[in-house]
Amino acid sequence: MRLLWQRAVRLQKLLPQTRPHRRLLATTTASARGNGQEERERRKWSSPGSKAEMLLYGAFWVGGLGLGYFWLTQRNSSTAEATPDDEAVARLWHITPRKDLPTYKADQVEQHNAPDKRIWVTYGLGVYDVTEFAENHPGGDKIMMAAGSAIDPFWAIYQQHNTLEVLELLESFRIGNLEGLIVPNAEEELGSPWAQEPVRHALLKPASKRPFNAEPPIGLLAEKFYTPNELFYVRNHLPVPVVASEEYELEIDACGGEQKPLTLTLAQIKALPRHTVTAAIMCGGNRRSEMTSIKAVKGLSWGAGAVGNAKWSGARLCDVLREQGVQPNESMHVLFEGADLDPTSHPYGASIPLSKALDPRGDVLLAYEMNDEPLTRDHGYPIRVIVPGTVGARNVKWLTRIAVADHESDSHWQQNDYKGFSPSTDWDTVDFGKAEAIQAMPVTSAICTPLPGERVKVDPQGRYITVRGYAWSGGGRKILRVDLTGDEGKTWHVAELEQEDAPDGRHYGWSLWTARLPIPEEQQQQQQLEIWAKAVDSAYNVQPEKFEHIWNLRGVLANAYHKVKVKLA
Amino acid sequence: MRLLWQRAVRLQKLLPQTRPHRRLLATTTASARGNGQEERERRKWSSPGSKAEMLLYGAFWVGGLGLGYFWLTQRNSSTAEATPDDEAVARLWHITPRKDLPTYKADQVEQHNAPDKRIWVTYGLGVYDVTEFAENHPGGDKIMMAAGSAIDPFWAIYQQHNTLEVLELLESFRIGNLEGLIVPNAEEELGSPWAQEPVRHALLKPASKRPFNAEPPIGLLAEKFYTPNELFYVRNHLPVPVVASEEYELEIDACGGEQKPLTLTLAQIKALPRHTVTAAIMCGGNRRSEMTSIKAVKGLSWGAGAVGNAKWSGARLCDVLREQGVQPNESMHVLFEGADLDPTSHPYGASIPLSKALDPRGDVLLAYEMNDEPLTRDHGYPIRVIVPGTVGARNVKWLTRIAVADHESDSHWQQNDYKGFSPSTDWDTVDFGKAEAIQAMPVTSAICTPLPGERVKVDPQGRYITVRGYAWSGGGRKILRVDLTGDEGKTWHVAELEQEDAPDGRHYGWSLWTARLPIPEEQQQQQQLEIWAKAVDSAYNVQPEKFEHIWNLRGVLANAYHKVKVKLA
Repeated sequence: MRLLWQRAVRLQKLLPQTRPHRRLLATTTASARGNGQEERERRKWSSPGSKAEMLLYGAFWVGGLGLGYFWLTQRNSSTAEATPDDEAVARLWHITPRKDLPTYKADQVEQHNAPDKRIWVTYGLGVYDVTEFAENHPGGDKIMMAAGSAIDPFWAIYQQHNTLEVLELLESFRIGNLEGLIVPNAEEELGSPWAQEPVRHALLKPASKRPFNAEPPIGLLAEKFYTPNELFYVRNHLPVPVVASEEYELEIDACGGEQKPLTLTLAQIKALPRHTVTAAIMCGGNRRSEMTSIKAVKGLSWGAGAVGNAKWSGARLCDVLREQGVQPNESMHVLFEGADLDPTSHPYGASIPLSKALDPRGDVLLAYEMNDEPLTRDHGYPIRVIVPGTVGARNVKWLTRIAVADHESDSHWQQNDYKGFSPSTDWDTVDFGKAEAIQAMPVTSAICTPLPGERVKVDPQGRYITVRGYAWSGGGRKILRVDLTGDEGKTWHVAELEQEDAPDGRHYGWSLWTARLPIPEEQQQQQQLEIWAKAVDSAYNVQPEKFEHIWNLRGVLANAYHKVKVKLA
Repeated sequence: MRLLWQRAVRLQKLLPQTRPHRRLLATTTASARGNGQEERERRKWSSPGSKAEMLLYGAFWVGGLGLGYFWLTQRNSSTAEATPDDEAVARLWHITPRKDLPTYKADQVEQHNAPDKRIWVTYGLGVYDVTEFAENHPGGDKIMMAAGSAIDPFWAIYQQHNTLEVLELLESFRIGNLEGLIVPNAEEELGSPWAQEPVRHALLKPASKRPFNAEPPIGLLAEKFYTPNELFYVRNHLPVPVVASEEYELEIDACGGEQKPLTLTLAQIKALPRHTVTAAIMCGGNRRSEMTSIKAVKGLSWGAGAVGNAKWSGARLCDVLREQGVQPNESMHVLFEGADLDPTSHPYGASIPLSKALDPRGDVLLAYEMNDEPLTRDHGYPIRVIVPGTVGARNVKWLTRIAVADHESDSHWQQNDYKGFSPSTDWDTVDFGKAEAIQAMPVTSAICTPLPGERVKVDPQGRYITVRGYAWSGGGRKILRVDLTGDEGKTWHVAELEQEDAPDGRHYGWSLWTARLPIPEEQQQQQQLEIWAKAVDSAYNVQPEKFEHIWNLRGVLANAYHKVKVKLA
């Protein structure tokens, strides 16, 4: 396969009609200036002038996908029945010519861009007629953005497509092969949106490389109350934008267009009263890999390390909004947009209720520092909104725009992702419109040491082992207790907590805990042990015991007891 | 035994030295006036002049206990091992003379009221030397209040004593019999603190009669979104005080004694801006009987009916406190006292964080109306504090005093009750000082119809049954979803919700729900079904699956899945 990519890159260089792509990243450095529509145009990654260009553009994404391919097939099991082999084969289909089908040129594909002309799309070198499917597309009209062109760039963003079922469905619509496909190697291409990704710490273990998503080794996580910045999990939905501090501007539209939006520079934000809050940020998909082990879900296969705890400093959003004359209104929302853009130039977006934003006890920050250091690029340099107690997805990075509105953000991530469903809801019955966007997260905990399968030494005197981990609950709820058991709940042992002395309802930081767990006689003889941990928060909410009854098709909110099997030495 | 009481009442009437007791209730009508200490004196139930009088006074309580005796032994199983017969026998000990032991007069008992003179107490006609036990008394120094006199009046209040273990422990300290004990029949005695209890609806099913604690039939509970006042569960910790509206005064000490407390009459409270909020009130022990079925706990055996939903109207506490100049301070608390007094003249008390009291979105009310009617006496006439989203115990009734302080209420109910513990914490290891008082309650739900054991008709066409119930979460968290299963979680069915359209974070009312539960083939054949219900709140917290791992020695926070077995017709 490597050969295929190399050949494709050579091919691209030979083709005279290939205009060099405009550099994406330069266009995102100074965002959110001036008129929104114009700005959106200006911020487009590559401003493709034609559908043909879009096809070529999509090829970059194919390259990225291809390189990540072996890794993906190992990391993500996408259906319960699929073996890695099934999936490996399926992932070759769209880059394999079908001899039983005709070959089309890009401009032929381009003609089929509406229901009355049939809707064709390409993926890799496959050509597909999706006319009948289009109206049932779970993502609605979004599919029409690719009509007559390549779906590759979209699928690179909307990861829910990267499953065996979807690949099978798509292949069933295959009508032909695309002539002259160019498959560049995105790593070698300066114009690639991925070309300016930051350098990451070697210990960050990626759940996906493009976009970059990675967690630290869980064994390190409970060592420090404040997670070191370079080991703090990274959750990017899109390529990391390059934002120059001197060009940075934040647009604040507090009045719904009734007056000119306020624009703040970085220096102006830093000149506002500085406020510091300790807050853990947790991905909605943290611990998804445990949920997946019950039944496959769609999403990055996170371990228990998609969480970190930091001291954030910045200006308080409530001060800025109050200064702008925003009054409490419980049906309003605050919308955030980042400088990170999808291939259609839509920014990453999310929203929170205005009541949270305006509450001084809500501690929402326009943060410029993380553990007393400027934010790193992976964590939103220069400004990230910190929404303490709330799922990571609302803590928008590279913040370029804030708007007060009578509706939630209409972004994919607010509307069609990061929501919970009943365990019996599947992709045929799911209705994202009927579920509520995750805001405050439920109580959870995890065992950081020992690691699963580790050989643990039992203290010869006390006949105990030492277990250490973290616990956290959303909404500012304090962790009251963490209970450990080594005998499936027959006896429970209360851990010692390390936590900040925060005011009631503002326990936004996590708690670390340490327990001396006595080893039951039976386990000592068997030389193995399953440790369970569960936390209780200040609303006395507890974790559910197992994943079966909280399973959901997106694999979010995976907060069942953490269970770790170890060997006893 | 009935004869024993009758004989005792006759005896009392014959004894010339028995002064008539001052009427308790008249002294509680106008409370919280003037100087606190003087007032406390004035509010005492019977102002006993001597220890001997205390002994006689205690006898009223014995009478009350005796009458409730058969009922209690049927309702409350107090230890896992105890049979109703064991307990019945134990409950006779203190009213049975021991021929192997000497007899003492009340004035002899009275001499033994300090460690250096030995500490004797009486219970019924038993005399006990508790000198060695006193320093280990779980309630601490409180035991010294009874030194040289009767413990009966205290035990009538502190219900944790009414268990087989405690009775056994006490009998092990028995040293003699009390001469000339008078056992009046409290029901026939006007001076009894119970003589002016209100008349209750016949459908309220008591968990205890003195103090009166009762819940409506759960089958009725989900019929109305607003629970009818007369069917709203009653949780009294003490006798119901008689409070005359024209004499009612509420003392508000907002400044910690730095200035004269404010006193508000009922008319003055009603003249403040009126605010209405829908809030469910739930007892911390709701559904305790289900937890007890795993392993016995101490506490009233509540079903799932110790909850109700009402529209409360009154003045906002935040308005009153702000008017008094109270500033936000996150280490402060607001203390509440009721007009209901224990035998030592201490009022029922509880506290909440000041931040909740001052938050306009916290909706804390000085409520005078419940579902558009004046409060009934059982629900706190004329003023009850409503603390939406918070355990019932903090919603203090017959409110007489509010104080802002740098500490929580020091009442028994705040400090040594209504707290959660690990399932392995027992009465030997429990440390109430290390646990946090319950405030916001965790998510829960219950099936109201069908009832356990009910024969349910399956819809012949749809092969489903209709299930109905309630769900609620504390802290203003909305119920997002209620899931039902008839096959132990293999498939889940989402219920339809009936709920108020409240602002985010202010969903203080409950949600009613209705589900059409398909009947699995297997269950149809077996003609029986176990229905499980579980709710999800807006922090996506879920109920734990079973009681084993949330069991706690006080039987509070019993929010596991509600499971109901029915027969299919």
